[in-house]
Amino acid sequence: MPIFGGIEAGGTKFVCAIASGPDDIRAETSFPTTTPDETIDRAIAFLQRNHEPLSSVGIGSFGPIDLDQTSQTFGYITTTPKKGWRYTEFVGRVRRALKVPVIFDTDTNAAGLAEATWGAARGLNTFVYLTVGTGIGGGGMLSGRALHGLSHSEMGHLRVPHSWDQDPYAGACPFHGDCLEGLAAGPALTGRWGQPGERLPPDHPAWQLEAHYLALGLANIIYTLSPQRIILGGGIMKQTMLFPLIRRNVLSVLNGYLEVPAITERINEYIVPPALGDKAGVFGAIALASFQ
Amino acid sequence: MPIFGGIEAGGTKFVCAIASGPDDIRAETSFPTTTPDETIDRAIAFLQRNHEPLSSVGIGSFGPIDLDQTSQTFGYITTTPKKGWRYTEFVGRVRRALKVPVIFDTDTNAAGLAEATWGAARGLNTFVYLTVGTGIGGGGMLSGRALHGLSHSEMGHLRVPHSWDQDPYAGACPFHGDCLEGLAAGPALTGRWGQPGERLPPDHPAWQLEAHYLALGLANIIYTLSPQRIILGGGIMKQTMLFPLIRRNVLSVLNGYLEVPAITERINEYIVPPALGDKAGVFGAIALASFQ
Repeated sequence: MPIFGGIEAGGTKFVCAIASGPDDIRAETSFPTTTPDETIDRAIAFLQRNHEPLSSVGIGSFGPIDLDQTSQTFGYITTTPKKGWRYTEFVGRVRRALKVPVIFDTDTNAAGLAEATWGAARGLNTFVYLTVGTGIGGGGMLSGRALHGLSHSEMGHLRVPHSWDQDPYAGACPFHGDCLEGLAAGPALTGRWGQPGERLPPDHPAWQLEAHYLALGLANIIYTLSPQRIILGGGIMKQTMLFPLIRRNVLSVLNGYLEVPAITERINEYIVPPALGDKAGVFGAIALASFQ
Repeated sequence: MPIFGGIEAGGTKFVCAIASGPDDIRAETSFPTTTPDETIDRAIAFLQRNHEPLSSVGIGSFGPIDLDQTSQTFGYITTTPKKGWRYTEFVGRVRRALKVPVIFDTDTNAAGLAEATWGAARGLNTFVYLTVGTGIGGGGMLSGRALHGLSHSEMGHLRVPHSWDQDPYAGACPFHGDCLEGLAAGPALTGRWGQPGERLPPDHPAWQLEAHYLALGLANIIYTLSPQRIILGGGIMKQTMLFPLIRRNVLSVLNGYLEVPAITERINEYIVPPALGDKAGVFGAIALASFQ
């Protein structure tokens, strides 16, 4: 049975695993994301400690990343605002150290692949996995193909209407101010309300506004990709009371335009949490490795 | 050599052709869109007059349309606001009359397929064809697959920020008011400025605002699909001075976030008019038929 290495490279922490699949994890570790050298070396050292040879390694990474195999910076994390990580070589370092094929994709495409294989998108070929946490990112598939084009999706930066009358907060995105991420990711909650989301009570008006902005983003995703299902993960979505609020807001934003029963009649099955929970990311990295 | 029938079903007019390909049009006609019975019967009568048997018929239609082969209303135009056309059977009528396979898709997926086969998206597998006219609609491909999911794309209804300070016009969309179509399609130009777009001079401030809204929509499409190219067709895009305005506004909306040379350095080749011009629609219908 082939054994794979997986690296979920997040902006806050890395999760690494050695496994033949989600039911057969041989080893797992996680550690905070510090400098590129220290963090990537730690991931490599963990995968090297394995006693059996790895067939391949999958990496699901925060971004933006370069997926263009003809590019000089293929396999790099590129223009990230994360300090010290701009233009960090990733794939090449792992491949040189471990001498196995390395499959590279975004964290959200990887998590989406895991959910399609073992979780909430099983049997679907067109779906979106959106993570809402420190940032907002989206991935998934269309007709069974990962969302890749010229580059990869950057759904966090969708422009949506800003409810200035109720919400004078200017937005937290260093590039766009009030894009979706600038209005609805973790830093926006902290910036707008003076305390992080996890300290705000479930009946705080923050959550109505949060659901409203996320619903505008989801409507835009629905109008563009027409996914069969949307999976919402990430730290902020641990506030599970957001799900019914978001579902209601999505129907309200669509306002009867799409008479698609899978949305209008079965919204509870249409916008769902990840079935793999926090494991979607590292299982996704394993899935990338195993499907190469 | 197989001969195909093509129907470009637009909300204003139908264009029908009989051809083996774009260089071999045997017959072509166009007529205004009136009632469903009259208009569809006229298309069928034209295709029946052909002396050689047709191998298949392609239809690229205005929408929303039902593309779900398991649905009771597969092959129908469904919830269109167009008077008299709500829940109009289309594919079944053509198939029963002509007794050949009928391939059905949106007008924009069809036009995109024609541009990918013979025009401005040749050699690309991920691109968007957006039409800006009486309405706004988008189609295209991702990794060589037509943009189909639960249903089809409805990019006209993207929600974008409304510049209320400069633009108090409430928007023309009967469902959403100020969605992209509500702010930037033909009826919005007429509603906002008191005269249709074609009467507004090229230096009228209408066009700056138009380019701004379209750029917000295009940025959302770029963030979601990451197309290799965007083709802009439709009546409003005949105002060719819009292209440089839109390109400049797209770069300004992205604001340096995506350092992708195909966009940042080659925007003139990234956002382009259709190479097939007005023929993209009917050629797309022929392409649908020939690739079935």
